Amino acid sequence: MATHPVHINGLYTDFYELSMAQGYFYAGKQQETAVFEYFFRTNPFHGGFLVFAGLADFLEQLQSFTYDEEAISYLGKIGLKPEFLNYLRHFSFQGKILSVREGELVFPNEPIVRIEANLIEAQLIETLLLNILNFQSLVATKAYRVVLAANGKSFADFGLRRAHGFGSLQASRAAIIGGASSTSNVQAAFMYDLPVSGTMAHSWVQSFGDELKAFKAYTAINPKNSILLVDTYNTLRSGVPNAILAAKELEQQGERLVGIRLDSGDLAYLSKKARKMMDQEGLSYVKIFASNQLNENVISSLEDQNAPIDGFGVGTELVTGKPDASLDGVYKLCENGGIPNMKISENIEKNTLPGKKMVWRFFDEEGNIYRDGILLDSETPDDCTWLYHPTQLDKRTQVCHLRKEQLLQPVFENGSVLFQMPSPAECNRYLTERASLLPEEHKRFVMPHIFKVGISEKLLKLRNDLAQSYKMNYEL
Amino acid sequence: MATHPVHINGLYTDFYELSMAQGYFYAGKQQETAVFEYFFRTNPFHGGFLVFAGLADFLEQLQSFTYDEEAISYLGKIGLKPEFLNYLRHFSFQGKILSVREGELVFPNEPIVRIEANLIEAQLIETLLLNILNFQSLVATKAYRVVLAANGKSFADFGLRRAHGFGSLQASRAAIIGGASSTSNVQAAFMYDLPVSGTMAHSWVQSFGDELKAFKAYTAINPKNSILLVDTYNTLRSGVPNAILAAKELEQQGERLVGIRLDSGDLAYLSKKARKMMDQEGLSYVKIFASNQLNENVISSLEDQNAPIDGFGVGTELVTGKPDASLDGVYKLCENGGIPNMKISENIEKNTLPGKKMVWRFFDEEGNIYRDGILLDSETPDDCTWLYHPTQLDKRTQVCHLRKEQLLQPVFENGSVLFQMPSPAECNRYLTERASLLPEEHKRFVMPHIFKVGISEKLLKLRNDLAQSYKMNYEL
Repeated sequence: MATHPVHINGLYTDFYELSMAQGYFYAGKQQETAVFEYFFRTNPFHGGFLVFAGLADFLEQLQSFTYDEEAISYLGKIGLKPEFLNYLRHFSFQGKILSVREGELVFPNEPIVRIEANLIEAQLIETLLLNILNFQSLVATKAYRVVLAANGKSFADFGLRRAHGFGSLQASRAAIIGGASSTSNVQAAFMYDLPVSGTMAHSWVQSFGDELKAFKAYTAINPKNSILLVDTYNTLRSGVPNAILAAKELEQQGERLVGIRLDSGDLAYLSKKARKMMDQEGLSYVKIFASNQLNENVISSLEDQNAPIDGFGVGTELVTGKPDASLDGVYKLCENGGIPNMKISENIEKNTLPGKKMVWRFFDEEGNIYRDGILLDSETPDDCTWLYHPTQLDKRTQVCHLRKEQLLQPVFENGSVLFQMPSPAECNRYLTERASLLPEEHKRFVMPHIFKVGISEKLLKLRNDLAQSYKMNYEL
Repeated sequence: MATHPVHINGLYTDFYELSMAQGYFYAGKQQETAVFEYFFRTNPFHGGFLVFAGLADFLEQLQSFTYDEEAISYLGKIGLKPEFLNYLRHFSFQGKILSVREGELVFPNEPIVRIEANLIEAQLIETLLLNILNFQSLVATKAYRVVLAANGKSFADFGLRRAHGFGSLQASRAAIIGGASSTSNVQAAFMYDLPVSGTMAHSWVQSFGDELKAFKAYTAINPKNSILLVDTYNTLRSGVPNAILAAKELEQQGERLVGIRLDSGDLAYLSKKARKMMDQEGLSYVKIFASNQLNENVISSLEDQNAPIDGFGVGTELVTGKPDASLDGVYKLCENGGIPNMKISENIEKNTLPGKKMVWRFFDEEGNIYRDGILLDSETPDDCTWLYHPTQLDKRTQVCHLRKEQLLQPVFENGSVLFQMPSPAECNRYLTERASLLPEEHKRFVMPHIFKVGISEKLLKLRNDLAQSYKMNYEL
């Protein structure tokens, strides 16, 4: 991995984490052990799944999550106290982390990452974890939805100019994990070793005043990899005819024009017309690329119309995760000093699941992903295991003699990453493999079938007992 | 300004800018002068204005927009050619930049930033400019909308956990420019010298098992600045009563509880009940803060209901600029080799305005902002000047004997920033001053009155002549 242009440290946190950490310190709770779990509540984009992403970035930044003298002095200035600052001076995260793999398909309410550490450590890293994982998972999911829409055609990430500042770097990484074939973002490509792509903007054509001259100048310099942007003046009356002339000239030099790019107008109409015009000139090898406010729904519609488009550029909606723009991932305390713990809400769906937990994935006879089960970490599923609906208590299902996997695996301990972190391309291969095992009805865009995640009987009982005891304590 | 944790360089660009720059280089156009202008097409959030932000950040990053040997070697690997790489090796932006001030209110289609440089320089910095200015202007605008909703009450930026990765740093800066009174983002506060705030999360309460114990432990450590989160178990039956007990204990020590924070449930209902409960105990000085998926519309509704809330925490929607999630700002070539230039579109609204331009702002007799006029840079408005609607050609208005300002001022030349860059707090003061001059009907959330931006007769004629000549050339 190349030089990372971002060097955050232990200051990369909400202030209240520091304020609470200081509180734990003075309350004598710094040695108390804690287990926190990261999970989300709602599938983004009204979809049926989330693509988990961001883990390698999180673990890398975690290792520089410390406080140098400049940071310590700043924290003193904003009110933290000397003894605690001295603690921070020697702080580095020494806890244990288990996680699902990057590129894994995950579902609401199941723990995706589990943190076991002392209370201060676990609290201080909350914001960093949420900031990195929420965003990258959102974008990877969006990218994979574009994959689903694009029918095997490729698409490039074009989003840098509309991305949220330096979040662009992480957006492009996540886009590749989700299935973009390349990115226009050179700095991200450099950092993360991603394939890079891009050719010309309207300003190229404008700067020559004459479109044909502009096309020929470009192909002269890039005879093997020119994609000509054909909508600076008028796509069908000027852009495509000039591209055809440029392609013919290239042929005389024994080269072939790679493609044209449509960037405005009705892409279905224009691509069909352009395809016909080029085919009539024997240029059926010249590809058609399309861009302009694309997303999975527009691409799906273009595919339904059999638009002869060979590849897509997807920008704004991909890197901003539009229209959701955020994932509702949270990080909740589930065990404290070895004792299971939960947050009660007026809304039963928002009660958290207490205790240190493991997610088990069950596969059906054909090898497809069938059910996820959340069990206490101390449990091992029997050959036949009942899984209960977390809130509708009369709903349960039994899984018997199925192949199963533990989704959470140790990834960090004693200050070190425990595995060779996969590249974004490798994460995408894993996603592709896993997605092939997820039945189609969960991947549908419109009202996808809800994937069932159940909880074990022991976990159900623990939650109900705990909720009951809180109710008695607080007369709820 | 403290150490900046982000160190991008000339790689922070879409690849096509490099590809075009290389093309200009080989086409012998590297000395050609160019003028590009930055503008946007649609007010975000269906509102009536944009708050311009991001300039100081852009100018700062621009100065490190160069190529070291590591970058050069990478660009060679992805296909750029040796002579051009040698050019890049010595590249730094030497052009001239004019800009509107940060915190200024601006409107669709008027140039906000103007770049005068050689064609390669101007092209290479496009993506950097768009990436920084689009996002920060979006967030500053969102923040100012919250100001408008909040009736003089303050709000804090709580968004780091849902922000787009490292874009959080820029989001928090822009939030302060737009009017947030503080941020939870410690790294951004450190970098940009922003006020920081935050107290406790549910995990603090959970970790004590007992809510009252948790509150008392917190106030013991923070007797002067405790805000207690009251919804971990049940807001009215447990959280508020325990906060009252903690406040009474503080009183005995001669201290005062600062406030409580509501983070779930119906905030109007709960704030009224909590206010009453605290007032009955003589705790009318204890403030009520509220958070939980707030935005300008929810806050507006809370204000309409007279919810006794003293301050707000605004997170996700603020830092992601939801629901828009992006601003449609673009960067277009308007002059090339001294000759005015434009992009034609099938849609007249998307034709760009040719030539190097200046924005003049006219103020009415009461000193309020009245009209903006886009003129050619070579023009000076007469005492009476006609301003034309850019597309509805029968609409025009005359401005006579009004005070006027040139909005674009030189900010960068010869590799250096030309002015003392204002802090985010100073930008906010400028915004507040300017916003006080903008009539209320432009600030309305629902169907705001459209602020009128006209173009001069000379600019109109230039555009029509140019469009006509393109039409003849391309038989459009």
